[in-house]
Amino acid sequence: MEHIESAKNPKVKQVNRLHHKKYRERDNKFIIEGEHLIETAIEAGVAIERVFVTNENKLSPLINQANVSLLTVTESIMKEMSQVETPPGLLAVVEMPAHELSGPAGKGMYLLLDAVQDPGNAGTMIRTADAAGLDGVVLGEGTVDPYNDKVIRSTQGSIFHVPVVKGELTEWIEKCQRQRIPVFGSSLQDGTSHTALGSQPAFALLVGNEGAGVRGELLGLTDQNVYLPLYGKAESLNVTVATGILLYHLRP
Amino acid sequence: MEHIESAKNPKVKQVNRLHHKKYRERDNKFIIEGEHLIETAIEAGVAIERVFVTNENKLSPLINQANVSLLTVTESIMKEMSQVETPPGLLAVVEMPAHELSGPAGKGMYLLLDAVQDPGNAGTMIRTADAAGLDGVVLGEGTVDPYNDKVIRSTQGSIFHVPVVKGELTEWIEKCQRQRIPVFGSSLQDGTSHTALGSQPAFALLVGNEGAGVRGELLGLTDQNVYLPLYGKAESLNVTVATGILLYHLRP
Repeated sequence: MEHIESAKNPKVKQVNRLHHKKYRERDNKFIIEGEHLIETAIEAGVAIERVFVTNENKLSPLINQANVSLLTVTESIMKEMSQVETPPGLLAVVEMPAHELSGPAGKGMYLLLDAVQDPGNAGTMIRTADAAGLDGVVLGEGTVDPYNDKVIRSTQGSIFHVPVVKGELTEWIEKCQRQRIPVFGSSLQDGTSHTALGSQPAFALLVGNEGAGVRGELLGLTDQNVYLPLYGKAESLNVTVATGILLYHLRP
Repeated sequence: MEHIESAKNPKVKQVNRLHHKKYRERDNKFIIEGEHLIETAIEAGVAIERVFVTNENKLSPLINQANVSLLTVTESIMKEMSQVETPPGLLAVVEMPAHELSGPAGKGMYLLLDAVQDPGNAGTMIRTADAAGLDGVVLGEGTVDPYNDKVIRSTQGSIFHVPVVKGELTEWIEKCQRQRIPVFGSSLQDGTSHTALGSQPAFALLVGNEGAGVRGELLGLTDQNVYLPLYGKAESLNVTVATGILLYHLRP
């Protein structure tokens, strides 16, 4: 097993470049850390370029037996490559899943995100979409990069389960409607209470930015806008909580 | 208006003491920051001891007209008192709401938190409980202090709307059951799917720790345990999302 002691090693430098979106997009690769995410990637059949570890004995049987290139590095190099305060000591460079989500085909359940900026929120929404059994998540303009380390961590592995693509939301709304898939916009007040809607065999749910909600321009294109009643004195729900309530309400 | 320029001023020192749970509990006071929270506290009729501001002109009409003691401080003193990276320039010392939640009285909807440690999660759950119109939130042993600044921020003001108390969960479960209020434990797999449960005129929902879930000991005391089906490949839902789905499903 190759052992790296210099931060100038090109493989270490590659990892540090992948901290930046520009290089992730150029190379079609990103970084994951920790046993759980690496095991999830292996199980999902994602191409893993290499795994860095500070201590060989830390490798789980699944990682050890997977046919991946393993390297050991010093603690200080791991600290430099890691994007968390307490590095788990296990880091991998993986290829972006080549998710084909060319468009809805007359059925399916989709989540469309309009300008969701907080990485934790975006990641939790992808995790919730996976839990709800959705067919895809479309990230519209202004939404955080899904291969950002905080998004990845918040997905808890769902980034490898549910297709996540970037897209133009006006086009996606139109595509869904052409296939007779109803598009529901999440709104703060206007529209129908979710209690008036039954479960839907196919749908796209459009949710929006943490502060501003879905852009009015997009809400004007949907089939129906839906809000969650506020029974107490709270002015709104957290956007990831609202997304979870709506997805579990709408899905059959 | 009194102007403070010294960090040794006793009123500044009081604020800094209130960063610690020990002093918050001794004095029955806590700190809130920013216009929205201070206005919410005023509207909720919470007793406000004093408001510090870096710039008098920053005061909203509501705060200006409220009958509260106002002081100006320098930016550097505000930075010392503030618990956020970018202080909003407006900070208040307020009294803990004297929420009487002596017990359920044959009806009501309650959320019981078992060892929820993350302040953002606890705060978001309180906000969700408010939105769902609940009558109270009970924080069991091991749950973060609700007057921690991060909890307060995540509640977005709901800490002033819905009664939040600390309590012994075994006692609360028993109290609810004596009043014929069914207690539902949130479980990862065991129990009934939420889809098999209709809405409930009165209930207590018991949710648990981010990693471990509700302690088995408590799940053994409930009337019924309930899980949310995972339709995709995600291993679990985020605990605040799961709480939101269950509360909006259970409430009438």
